Amino acid sequence: MILQPVVNIAEICARKGVENVVLSPGSRCAPLTIAFARHPKLKVRTISDERAAAFIALGMALTTGKPTVLVCTSGTAALNYAPAVAEAFFQQVPLLILTADRPPEWIDQLDGQTIRQQNVYGQHIKQSYSFPVDFSHQDSVWHSERIVSEALNETMSYPAGPVHINIPLREPFYPAPGEELVFNAAIKIIEEEHPNYSLSAAQAQQLQQEIRNYKRVLVVAGQQNHTAELQPLLQQFALQTGSVIVGDLISNIHQLPEIIRHQDAMLACPDPKKLAVLQPDLLITFGKSIISKALKLYLRKYKPKAHWHIQPAGQVADTYQSLTKIVRCTPEAFFSTINADSDQNYSSAWSALETKAAGFLKSHTSEATFSELTAVARIFENLPAQSNLHLANSMAVRYANIVGLGAGKNIEVYANRGTSGIDGSNSTTVGCALASDKITTLLTGDMAFFYDRNGLWHNYLPQNLRIVILNNHAGGIFRLIDGPKQQPELEEYFETRQNLDAANTARDFGMNYSSCSSLEELDTILPSFFAADAGAGILEIFTNSKTNAIAFANYKQELLKAL
Amino acid sequence: MILQPVVNIAEICARKGVENVVLSPGSRCAPLTIAFARHPKLKVRTISDERAAAFIALGMALTTGKPTVLVCTSGTAALNYAPAVAEAFFQQVPLLILTADRPPEWIDQLDGQTIRQQNVYGQHIKQSYSFPVDFSHQDSVWHSERIVSEALNETMSYPAGPVHINIPLREPFYPAPGEELVFNAAIKIIEEEHPNYSLSAAQAQQLQQEIRNYKRVLVVAGQQNHTAELQPLLQQFALQTGSVIVGDLISNIHQLPEIIRHQDAMLACPDPKKLAVLQPDLLITFGKSIISKALKLYLRKYKPKAHWHIQPAGQVADTYQSLTKIVRCTPEAFFSTINADSDQNYSSAWSALETKAAGFLKSHTSEATFSELTAVARIFENLPAQSNLHLANSMAVRYANIVGLGAGKNIEVYANRGTSGIDGSNSTTVGCALASDKITTLLTGDMAFFYDRNGLWHNYLPQNLRIVILNNHAGGIFRLIDGPKQQPELEEYFETRQNLDAANTARDFGMNYSSCSSLEELDTILPSFFAADAGAGILEIFTNSKTNAIAFANYKQELLKAL
Repeated sequence: MILQPVVNIAEICARKGVENVVLSPGSRCAPLTIAFARHPKLKVRTISDERAAAFIALGMALTTGKPTVLVCTSGTAALNYAPAVAEAFFQQVPLLILTADRPPEWIDQLDGQTIRQQNVYGQHIKQSYSFPVDFSHQDSVWHSERIVSEALNETMSYPAGPVHINIPLREPFYPAPGEELVFNAAIKIIEEEHPNYSLSAAQAQQLQQEIRNYKRVLVVAGQQNHTAELQPLLQQFALQTGSVIVGDLISNIHQLPEIIRHQDAMLACPDPKKLAVLQPDLLITFGKSIISKALKLYLRKYKPKAHWHIQPAGQVADTYQSLTKIVRCTPEAFFSTINADSDQNYSSAWSALETKAAGFLKSHTSEATFSELTAVARIFENLPAQSNLHLANSMAVRYANIVGLGAGKNIEVYANRGTSGIDGSNSTTVGCALASDKITTLLTGDMAFFYDRNGLWHNYLPQNLRIVILNNHAGGIFRLIDGPKQQPELEEYFETRQNLDAANTARDFGMNYSSCSSLEELDTILPSFFAADAGAGILEIFTNSKTNAIAFANYKQELLKAL
Repeated sequence: MILQPVVNIAEICARKGVENVVLSPGSRCAPLTIAFARHPKLKVRTISDERAAAFIALGMALTTGKPTVLVCTSGTAALNYAPAVAEAFFQQVPLLILTADRPPEWIDQLDGQTIRQQNVYGQHIKQSYSFPVDFSHQDSVWHSERIVSEALNETMSYPAGPVHINIPLREPFYPAPGEELVFNAAIKIIEEEHPNYSLSAAQAQQLQQEIRNYKRVLVVAGQQNHTAELQPLLQQFALQTGSVIVGDLISNIHQLPEIIRHQDAMLACPDPKKLAVLQPDLLITFGKSIISKALKLYLRKYKPKAHWHIQPAGQVADTYQSLTKIVRCTPEAFFSTINADSDQNYSSAWSALETKAAGFLKSHTSEATFSELTAVARIFENLPAQSNLHLANSMAVRYANIVGLGAGKNIEVYANRGTSGIDGSNSTTVGCALASDKITTLLTGDMAFFYDRNGLWHNYLPQNLRIVILNNHAGGIFRLIDGPKQQPELEEYFETRQNLDAANTARDFGMNYSSCSSLEELDTILPSFFAADAGAGILEIFTNSKTNAIAFANYKQELLKAL
């Protein structure tokens, strides 16, 4: 017999808006598996490698904006979730993690698959709960139901994130023959109405007064999902106030025609005078991290007089070492309320350099020889409109941010920049593809791809998945950045040469496979690769890490001349 | 310039007996990478997937009995170590984990690859240290050196285990052009002389007096590495005192001819009278966990009057709910000092049933049709003498313990029974093979094998590695145990059917590959597969999980008749 409070977990999740559940198989978690699998309103999938399972759940939650539930058995299963849990914590993605556990009396008694699971995610979890183990007192039943409601509320309260419930379970784990599970729809849940994080009239007036003191207002958007509401407000703010808006790819504001999007390139400008005129009086930021190291270093050197960060709640980073004011409202509330009054020359200076950088990149990537940078430019030209793009860490995300996306195609961009690990990008993209009808493309390198091969090891291969691998058979980034490339340890201990290509992997998982080693081949492949009905595919682009390094050095040299 | 205290870490490790270092590539950890790679006395390897890297280090430490050093960069790299760290903690294997980190001022500032690394292993680490970040005061230098000595001592003090040092590093990460690293051999280290954990004369006399009260003395050995010293002492104790000694495969006492080794089979005896005469007055245990569920359940039902557990130090489990005395000495000290005086009929009763079970297993596995159980029996017959055997969790370790190993071949048996996860068995075996000259065989299932494919993804494939995969294309265990096999969710949510076979993986990693689907084929392949000069190979044994379930049910039925 499965305990009713355990069955109720599935019902409460369904009632509170959960749609997707990712299980990993196990014995101890059998009551949870059965309760979720039998619930008529939940979509349940089972993924064997818990590291991949957790990143897949992350991808689903990212795409749907709703908490995804993870269920695993006792032991190291829970620890294999840890990388994705940390990513969810810092990227603020709602996950509810349910770990089955031995009852307390059997912890540390040398039983199999038993570790110390309470608070196992340490400082990378919003909240950790212990589910009751005995239900003889009615208060324990109330407690168990409350925990699930509270935990789901906590995943969504700003900033969203992962929440953990550890669930000790005693045998029996399975329903008796003929026993039917009862989902009690009358069960009490706790709803939460969230604050709207707007500015009071007095606050708005005060900020409006202050902002008039600044004639050079720079807005930098950090990582965030695409929101339709914010785009026109930002557009209006830029046009009406003459302020400058800068957005990396992961800020998802590339739909706006007027933004600065080539900061990686333009801030390489060697002329200190041209750089000095870009210095803001007031820096306004919102969202999470930015990719552009050039922008980060620029703003740490050319510090604004004031830096306002807009964030409804939670801890705030002082990324540019110049933070002076935290504004507790949504970016939508801020930009619909406050007007600036910038000097027209200020935005003209940014625009001029942006135009130069954009023009240079366009001509350079269309004329230059085959390299990862030119390949990424071609891929971006061919990306389908209305599609999703996931960027793996290391060089993929950097190349992508250099090239940038123009306005018009409505591409939503994702990247695991909460922790910026190379782990989990295949899985996250699979989760995104499973939760979306759109073509979902992953741009990745060979190290990240093979690191997370198990993201494809399951029975749910989404046909809208497209994986582009930049395979230079090594961690090519170490040949592109200063430092390691001058060391004798470069090849063995930094690049770490690896010999795999993805043909066998594609064969193993029944995916289309094509590869290329030239721009001509790439141009031939791309249209059919991205065709809506092409099915799940891998496109592997072979380059040589030494040639890439030369090409990248050449790009940087040409860029200096162009700016 | 790399700070001298960071360079000193490598020197202190070398001075204190570290031989093997496993790095994973990264930028933040570059000073550590360079210091270790350049040290003339350390063997350094680089493994890209940190989850695999940590299990490989675990395998090396298991095999050598010396601490292996792990080095990774900041961010989720450290979290990918967590499953192996927990296994090392519960299996008591010495690991020194060095995680590079951002300096404290940049934590939580939205910088890439930054998580909260202090105490990141929670309750699964013996000790966590924070390396100093500033060395302007001489005491910080002394502190930094002391930490490394202390940490290495702690990995080896009983019970051995993992220790963590988090190392915040500021740029620059690389030596200046022409800069030579200086390893200062005069650096002070702290040696530790460990207690010998013997019994005092008074203690010995007292225990000797007490033990005379028990006429039915049962000794159960838990998991431990093979030790040459203990074997003759146990042999003598059994022969001179008439006591019974039971050992699972992982207790590594199968070299002794007189032990009980078929407890999994014999305790299935349906005759309560035959079982009752096996009940001990005194149970003496040492070592860590046991595999045999039958033995565990037997002892929890037929409780001894007293249970003594021999363990030099550390927390003690009450595995059989009958623990009455903890003896703080080594098993060697105990069995060389104490004599029992058991009733001869007691050991005869155990021997009689053991003989029956062994005889049945021999005839059953030689006569029965092809199944995983019969395949494991054939493999065990063909295992090379003086070799290592690693058992993956789930069914592989269970089949192996049913079949058992006889005396004579001197096979050392390893299994990750600290946490009993299916993760990390390929990697652990690779680590074992890298640290040993012997043929090193992994017996595994398809789920465990593909879960840890990245254990083979590096440039150090050991030619003494042999992997035998029992591939039933699913988590076949769920069809063999009661509970899940009666549920409609069996195939999708418990077994989790998977379609891979290992041919492409063998091709990817340049390993020999053979497969079979019958005993005849298996018999043909085994001699060449295990040949000393055959090179690294995968042998894949295809069975059907439904047929296995029928064969296993048949085995159990026949066994009942035989006992």
